[in-house]
Amino acid sequence: MTTDNTGPIRFTDRTHTTLHPATTARITGGFWAARRATNAEVSIPQGPSKLEEAGNLANLRAAADGKGTFTGDFQFQDSDVHKWLEAASWQLADSPEDTQLAAHIEELTALLAAAQDADGYLQTYYQVAHPELRWQELDWGHELYCAGHLIQAAVAHHRATGRRELLDVAERFAAHIDATFGKDKAIDGVCGHPEIETALVELYRETGERRWLDLAGYFVDRRGYGVLNAGADRGDDRDMGRSYWQDRVSVREADTVEGHAVRQLYLLAGATDLAAETGDAELRAALERLWDAMVATKTYVTGGVGSRYEGEAFGDPFELPPDRAYAETCAAISSVQWSWRMALLTGEAKYSDLVERTLFNGFLSGVGLDGDSWLYVNPLQVREEHADRSGDQTARRTPWFRCACCPPNVMRLLASLPHYVASGDAEGMQLHQYATGVYAAGEGVVRVETAYPWDGRITVTVEEAPADRDWSLSLRIPSWCTQFKASAPDGSAPTETGDGWLRVHRRWSEGDTLTLDLDLTARLTRPDPRVDAVRGCVAVERGPLVHCLEGVDQQPGVRLDDVTLPYGSELAVAQEPELLGGVAVVTADGRRRSDGGGVRLTAVPYYAWANREEGAMRVWIPEE
Amino acid sequence: MTTDNTGPIRFTDRTHTTLHPATTARITGGFWAARRATNAEVSIPQGPSKLEEAGNLANLRAAADGKGTFTGDFQFQDSDVHKWLEAASWQLADSPEDTQLAAHIEELTALLAAAQDADGYLQTYYQVAHPELRWQELDWGHELYCAGHLIQAAVAHHRATGRRELLDVAERFAAHIDATFGKDKAIDGVCGHPEIETALVELYRETGERRWLDLAGYFVDRRGYGVLNAGADRGDDRDMGRSYWQDRVSVREADTVEGHAVRQLYLLAGATDLAAETGDAELRAALERLWDAMVATKTYVTGGVGSRYEGEAFGDPFELPPDRAYAETCAAISSVQWSWRMALLTGEAKYSDLVERTLFNGFLSGVGLDGDSWLYVNPLQVREEHADRSGDQTARRTPWFRCACCPPNVMRLLASLPHYVASGDAEGMQLHQYATGVYAAGEGVVRVETAYPWDGRITVTVEEAPADRDWSLSLRIPSWCTQFKASAPDGSAPTETGDGWLRVHRRWSEGDTLTLDLDLTARLTRPDPRVDAVRGCVAVERGPLVHCLEGVDQQPGVRLDDVTLPYGSELAVAQEPELLGGVAVVTADGRRRSDGGGVRLTAVPYYAWANREEGAMRVWIPEE
Repeated sequence: MTTDNTGPIRFTDRTHTTLHPATTARITGGFWAARRATNAEVSIPQGPSKLEEAGNLANLRAAADGKGTFTGDFQFQDSDVHKWLEAASWQLADSPEDTQLAAHIEELTALLAAAQDADGYLQTYYQVAHPELRWQELDWGHELYCAGHLIQAAVAHHRATGRRELLDVAERFAAHIDATFGKDKAIDGVCGHPEIETALVELYRETGERRWLDLAGYFVDRRGYGVLNAGADRGDDRDMGRSYWQDRVSVREADTVEGHAVRQLYLLAGATDLAAETGDAELRAALERLWDAMVATKTYVTGGVGSRYEGEAFGDPFELPPDRAYAETCAAISSVQWSWRMALLTGEAKYSDLVERTLFNGFLSGVGLDGDSWLYVNPLQVREEHADRSGDQTARRTPWFRCACCPPNVMRLLASLPHYVASGDAEGMQLHQYATGVYAAGEGVVRVETAYPWDGRITVTVEEAPADRDWSLSLRIPSWCTQFKASAPDGSAPTETGDGWLRVHRRWSEGDTLTLDLDLTARLTRPDPRVDAVRGCVAVERGPLVHCLEGVDQQPGVRLDDVTLPYGSELAVAQEPELLGGVAVVTADGRRRSDGGGVRLTAVPYYAWANREEGAMRVWIPEE
Repeated sequence: MTTDNTGPIRFTDRTHTTLHPATTARITGGFWAARRATNAEVSIPQGPSKLEEAGNLANLRAAADGKGTFTGDFQFQDSDVHKWLEAASWQLADSPEDTQLAAHIEELTALLAAAQDADGYLQTYYQVAHPELRWQELDWGHELYCAGHLIQAAVAHHRATGRRELLDVAERFAAHIDATFGKDKAIDGVCGHPEIETALVELYRETGERRWLDLAGYFVDRRGYGVLNAGADRGDDRDMGRSYWQDRVSVREADTVEGHAVRQLYLLAGATDLAAETGDAELRAALERLWDAMVATKTYVTGGVGSRYEGEAFGDPFELPPDRAYAETCAAISSVQWSWRMALLTGEAKYSDLVERTLFNGFLSGVGLDGDSWLYVNPLQVREEHADRSGDQTARRTPWFRCACCPPNVMRLLASLPHYVASGDAEGMQLHQYATGVYAAGEGVVRVETAYPWDGRITVTVEEAPADRDWSLSLRIPSWCTQFKASAPDGSAPTETGDGWLRVHRRWSEGDTLTLDLDLTARLTRPDPRVDAVRGCVAVERGPLVHCLEGVDQQPGVRLDDVTLPYGSELAVAQEPELLGGVAVVTADGRRRSDGGGVRLTAVPYYAWANREEGAMRVWIPEE
C-alpha cells in the first residue's frame, strides 16, 4: 500500500455521491498485474524518447527559450506530454523506488515550468508558432483541452509524490484561464474539445479552491448554444459543426450521446464530476439518460464507442458497423472514466459492468501485447482482402502516431487501474472489478485472489473490518453472468439482490473469506435486431471477454468470409498458456459456405488480436 | 435529328472497338424525356446564376482583369463552369432554338477565353490566388483535372455548334500542358485527380492531332509508381496516399478498383479510351478484370460505387454498408461513363446492364424531382433518428454544394443521355437502353416507343436499314430479366443468344416492327452472403428499378427499424400517376417485430426518395 487514494478521483466530505473510491488500492497479481507490468516496464519508460522523437519536448524547450520552431501537426501536441506525466505519476505511486522514472518526471516537469509564460499561459503551439492567435481559435485550438490534461497530470503528480511543482504550473494556468473566461470576462466561450471540465473539478477537490469548481460549471453549462459555431462560420455544407464540437445541445437537454465520441465522453465525465460536487439532480438525471442511450444504441459488444470515422462520431442509434468501426482507443478510455464516475455517483452496478466490458475488450485491444505497438481504431472485422486503406489504419499496430493521443492515454489508464476496482461507503465496501490485490475502502481492507478472467473463482479475504458492528462486503455480479455460486464464512450461499450486487452484511473478522464462483461457460451473444450491420450473426463470449476469429488460428485455406456457425453449435474452451501470453480459446464446429464442409473454428480473446501476422479477423460470425 | 453524333464519344476510322455509338440519337418521350425536360428547363438554366453566386464567374473575371480575389474553397472551382458548359452544349444540340442558352454559353466561353493566360494556362485559383504555386501542387491542385473538363466542354461545344471558340481555348491549354509534361520535359508527373486522360483522347478524336493521344497515354501509364507520393510526404499515418491518388499500382497491374472512386473511374474511362484507340490488348484485359472485380465485390444494388466516406473510396471487397454508403453521385456518373466505353470496346451486354442499373437508381437519386435540389451521397438506409450528422449530408437535398461537382455532372449526363442508348457496327444496330426516341447507328435508323420502366413493352420500328442485305437489330435483354417475349416482323419469337443480346438478323423493310415484352413482375433480391452489412435482408426490385421503403409512405406509427418481410411474401404492383411525378409502387405484407402485428409495406422507386418530408428510408429489408 502506498499513498492514500492514489487515483484520478478523490472526493471530499462535500461530495454528493453514493460511493467513494477506495482509499488505497494495489493490484498485485493476475491478469491486470501482467498488463500493468508491461505498461510499467515497456510503455511508460519509452514515453520520453517517443516524445523527444516526435518533437514534443523540443517544443517545450522552444517555448522556454523563446527561440526555435514548432514541431508536429497538431495544436494539441503538448497534451501527449501531459498524459505521459499523468501516467508516469500514477506509476511512480505504485513503484516509488523507480528513480529513473522519478528523474524523467522531474525533467519534464521542469521543462513545463520553464515553458510557461509569465501570465500562466502554456501551450507551445501558440507560444512558438502563432502567438498572435492565442485564444483566437477556440474550435480547433485545444488550449483548454491541453490545460485540462496539464491539470490532471499535476493532480496525479501531487497525489503520487506530494510535490507541488507541477501543481503550481497547473494552478497558474488555471488562474489565467479563470481570469480570461466567463460570462463577463474577455472571452465568453468554450473549447472545441472538452477535457478541462473534469480536470478543474479534480483540481478543486485537490486544492479546495471553489473557483475551479465554478469555472468547471461555467464550461459545462455554456455549451450547447452554438458558442463555437465553427462549422457554420466556414460555410461548411456538412453538419459536422455543432455535434462535433459538443455545442449543438446542452448536456441537460440532450437525449442521446452524439458527435465526436471522445469530446462527448470527456464532457460527460466532467458533468458527472460537477453533479457529484453540486448534487444537481437535473444534471444527474440527464447523465443517467445519456448513459442509458449510449449503452442501448451506440455501444459495441466490445465496449467500443464512436462508430463513425467521419467526425470520429457516435453516429446514429444502431449504426454499429463491425468493419468500419472507428471505436477509438481514447473513446474506450473516456467511456471507462465516465462510467466509473457514474458508478460512484449512483452506486449502480451497471456502470461497472460497462467498465469491465470496455477494459477487457475495446480498451485493451488498443495496446499490443508487447506494450510498444498501438491501435488507434478498434474494428470488429477485417476482411481477407483489406487492401483499400484509404484513410484507414486498421489491422496494423503502429509504434506511435502522428496524432499520438491514444498511447499515453492507455498508459495513464493502466497505471491508475487499481483505482477502478473498489469503492466504499458508510455501510461497507464494493468490489466493482476482480483483480488480485489489496483494497481499502470505507472502513475495511480486503485481499482479493483470482485467476480471472481465465477462471471464475474469486476469493476475498477480509484483512480489516469494523469490529463493533455489521459491515457489508458487496461483489458485483457481472450482467453477463447467469450462474454463480457464492460462499460466505458461515457456509451460507448468498445471492444477488436484484440490483447487480451480491451483498454480505455481517460481523466480519480478520481472515474471513467470501468466495465467488462465476460460471465462465462460453456463450453465444446475439445482437439487437436493429443493429443492421451484424444481423444474423453471433459473437462468442466467455466471462468478460469477447472472442474473435483471427485468420492465423484457423485451418489452412479457411477464409473468414466463408465460415458460418450452424445453429446449436457447441462451444469448447481450452487454456493455451503458450498462446498470446496465455489465453483461453473457444472452439466450435463451423461450416464452410462454399462447399458445405465442416471446419473447426478457433476464437481468441479480442483484446489479443493483431499481435501476430496480419490477416482477417471477425467478432460477429454468421449463424446459419 | 440534329448534328451527327452529338455525344461525348465519337470514334474515328482508326478506333479499335467492337461497336460505335449511334451517329444520331434523340429521346422524344417517356421516362427519360421527362427527366431531361426538367434538366433543360430547370437545372441547366439555373447554372449561370448558381455559378455567379458561388463566385466561379467572378474568379474568371478576376483572372481576365488581373485584379480581384479568388472566391471559393477549392482549387478546382473552375471545373463547375466547364461541366456546366459541357451540359449546356449537349442541351443546345438538342434544342438549338434556345437562344438564351446559346447566349449564356457564348458569355461563359468569352469569359474563359479572356481569363486564359497568354501561354495557354487557365485555372483561376492559381492565376488569381497563388501564381507562385502553378504546377507546384500536383496532388491537390486539380490543374490537369480542370483542363480535362475544359477540353470535354470544348469538344461538346464544337460538336454541338460547330464553333471553335472554346476548342481554341482548350487546345491552347492542351498545347501548354503537352509542352510542360512528359518524361523529358519540365514536369514528369501526373495530376492528383484523373480526368484529363479521357478528355485528351476525345480531343484527339475531335481534332485528329496524334499528340493528344500520346499525352493521354503518358498520363495513364505514368501512374501507379508513387509519382505523387503526397501522403507520404506529409508523414501521414493513414494510408490514404497512393490509393487515393490512384498512384499505388498501375492500371495494367491492378487486381481491383480502389481508392477514391471518382478518380479511379475517370482514370479507367481514360484508359478504356486509350485501349480503344491503340488496340492495346494488355490494357483491355486489365480493364475487363477491374470492371468484373468492381461489379462482383464493390457495387451497390443501386449501381452506386465508392462505399466509404473516408477518402471517398471504394473500400474493401463486400464493404457495402447501406447506412453509411457514400456512393457519390459523381461516382455513379463516372461508372456510367466507364461502362459505356467498355460496352463499345467489347460489345458485351453486361456493361450496359450496369449502365441501366446505375442510371435508374444510384445516379438518378442524385437530383431531386424538381431539378433544383441535389444529393451528394446516396445512402441505401437512413434511420428514424438520423440526428448525428457529424460529417454527413445524407437525407437532405441541397440547392447547391460548396464543393459543387455533382450538380453540373448530373446535368451533363442527362443532357447527353441519348448518346448512351444505341450503337452500331457493320452488321447492324444494338439498343443498349430503352427510351422512346429515334436512333441512327451503323446503317440503320430505328424508332423506339416504350413506357419503360413502368411497362415492359418496347416497340422498335425500323425507319431505315440496308435494303440489299440482311442486317441485325440487337436488343439487350437486361440481366435482371428472367422472362420476356419478343415478336419479329415474320411472327417468329426470337430468343436471347446466351450473351445478353437478342439479335434479329434478317432483311428489314421500312416500318418493320420488333416488339419486346420484358416481364416486370416485382422481385426480391438477396445479397451475396459476403456483403455482411445486409445479411438476412432482401431488396425489392421491379424491372431496372430498385425500390425502397420511405417512412412517409408507411402506415402511421410504423418504424422502418421495426419491420420485416416474412419469407414468401407476395409483392403487388400499383401504378400511382399522382405520386412522385408518376411511379409504380410495390407493396407487400410485412410484420412489425415489436408486436408481431401485420403491416402493409409500400416501396417507391429509390431514385425518387428524399423528395418529400425528411424521414427514414431503407432499401434492404430484413427477411424473417
